[in-house]
Amino acid sequence: MSAAFGVLLCVQKFKDQDKGKVLRLFHKTCDYLATSRPTAVNLFNMLNEMRTVVDQNPDADVASLKKVLLKKAMAIFKADQEVCRRMGDHGAKLIKNGMKCMTVCNAGALATVDYGTALGAFYSAKKMNKQFSVYSLETRPLLQGSRLTCWELQKQKIDTTLICDNMAASLMAKAKVDIIFAGADRIASNGDTANKIGTYMLAVLAKHHGIPFYIVAPRSTFDLAIRSGKQIPIEERKSEEVTHFAGVSTAPKGIKVYNPAFDVTPAKLITGIVTEYGVIHPPYLKNIKRMIG
Amino acid sequence: MSAAFGVLLCVQKFKDQDKGKVLRLFHKTCDYLATSRPTAVNLFNMLNEMRTVVDQNPDADVASLKKVLLKKAMAIFKADQEVCRRMGDHGAKLIKNGMKCMTVCNAGALATVDYGTALGAFYSAKKMNKQFSVYSLETRPLLQGSRLTCWELQKQKIDTTLICDNMAASLMAKAKVDIIFAGADRIASNGDTANKIGTYMLAVLAKHHGIPFYIVAPRSTFDLAIRSGKQIPIEERKSEEVTHFAGVSTAPKGIKVYNPAFDVTPAKLITGIVTEYGVIHPPYLKNIKRMIG
Repeated sequence: MSAAFGVLLCVQKFKDQDKGKVLRLFHKTCDYLATSRPTAVNLFNMLNEMRTVVDQNPDADVASLKKVLLKKAMAIFKADQEVCRRMGDHGAKLIKNGMKCMTVCNAGALATVDYGTALGAFYSAKKMNKQFSVYSLETRPLLQGSRLTCWELQKQKIDTTLICDNMAASLMAKAKVDIIFAGADRIASNGDTANKIGTYMLAVLAKHHGIPFYIVAPRSTFDLAIRSGKQIPIEERKSEEVTHFAGVSTAPKGIKVYNPAFDVTPAKLITGIVTEYGVIHPPYLKNIKRMIG
Repeated sequence: MSAAFGVLLCVQKFKDQDKGKVLRLFHKTCDYLATSRPTAVNLFNMLNEMRTVVDQNPDADVASLKKVLLKKAMAIFKADQEVCRRMGDHGAKLIKNGMKCMTVCNAGALATVDYGTALGAFYSAKKMNKQFSVYSLETRPLLQGSRLTCWELQKQKIDTTLICDNMAASLMAKAKVDIIFAGADRIASNGDTANKIGTYMLAVLAKHHGIPFYIVAPRSTFDLAIRSGKQIPIEERKSEEVTHFAGVSTAPKGIKVYNPAFDVTPAKLITGIVTEYGVIHPPYLKNIKRMIG
């Protein structure tokens, strides 16, 4: 959604009336935004929706083009909002009174729109007056869990406890986790899911401890063009994210660092995928096709 | 070992010649140091060794007491050094050329003496000219992996890569980990092992990926008085370790935090325990008793 508004903003700032120029600017901006992150597929989907609008209006002048692009971006925003609410409601059905939930990274309002994806399940459950609590993994290296998720959940008065990523297993062993919800950046047609680094760790630990592990993601996160998670490109980021904090060095100079931003959770470790249409269960290849294909 | 030297230093600073006073100071210091950390058993063992020296020299005056305590502390130091070298040699036998190893926290010179425990295996292997590399988990919240282990290994010119704790699973899935070495703070008579938080996570992940998982620890880490890991007290530490870094807040004010410093790995997840006497394999109850009982 942000990508759609990014393109829109750029076109809106264009002051000239030259159609050729604005089209070049539009496509250049789309191409540029497409290079920003390789893993999440929604980014590419949204840019494609904006490109389609331009293709469908070949006779529009610059002013009309601005109008149709604004209309499209707003439509995407509204649709996303509705989709998040529906996912939230489907997810909330999985939360029973007294449950201790767990989530990783930020799959809430700050990462998406409105209710978000994984956090939408908590927001819906709260609205239904269910009693539950949430463990939020801090999510190294960028701490989206402590900085964003804890802030969002605290604002909604949801009982939240922050932990380091390496403490999740210990809580599971103590039977302090009943259900896990994670978002997704891209889901292959067989259900393999790329999400923030640490999600795969949670899925393996959940399997070991017999804890249900759910992905929450809208249709736009599915990439039915790819057969498995092996085809999802994983973004590797700069070492300073791991070796420094707030400008302070926390590792010896020159140390090698491996810093992948995402990992892929194989479908066999996923209990269900919560979408705006309902929860998809295994076998995923068949059921994903049936529900959203 | 540090506990023994701590008591020694305190007694050495005592300027009076009053035997009653120095004994009260000695026992007060031992009691005080014993309250510093609840999980590691070496601490209590070393304090007991120092107390035994005092008990065995009832007629010693203050000056002689200082002498026998210094002699004992130095003997502990020498013995620890020897033990670490022997553990290192036994551990190094498990490292084959080309292996990609993994370790957590700091089980090296900075945490123990000389070679350390888990890192001793790497130091011995390096001395034997074996070719291998090491992934060091940063070990949140206090980053002993990035701050201490990476520094130690880099100094020894061992090929080392730093990762966040939540990236270990992803590396295992990519077959980039052949063997894991961790230290221990206390090992029960059945082999259950308490060590730095995140060790249990590694052990579960290792099991899932079929990767050998070794604990490296000397005899003094075994607590044969307890039957299982359930009896090991786990230290919980203050929330600021998780919510702040270098004085900078990284989480919303007032958020609840769970911050255990250790976790317990059940014996069934441990491939072997490397001691100064050799590697102990399952069944642990029987084999621990036989090797060190």
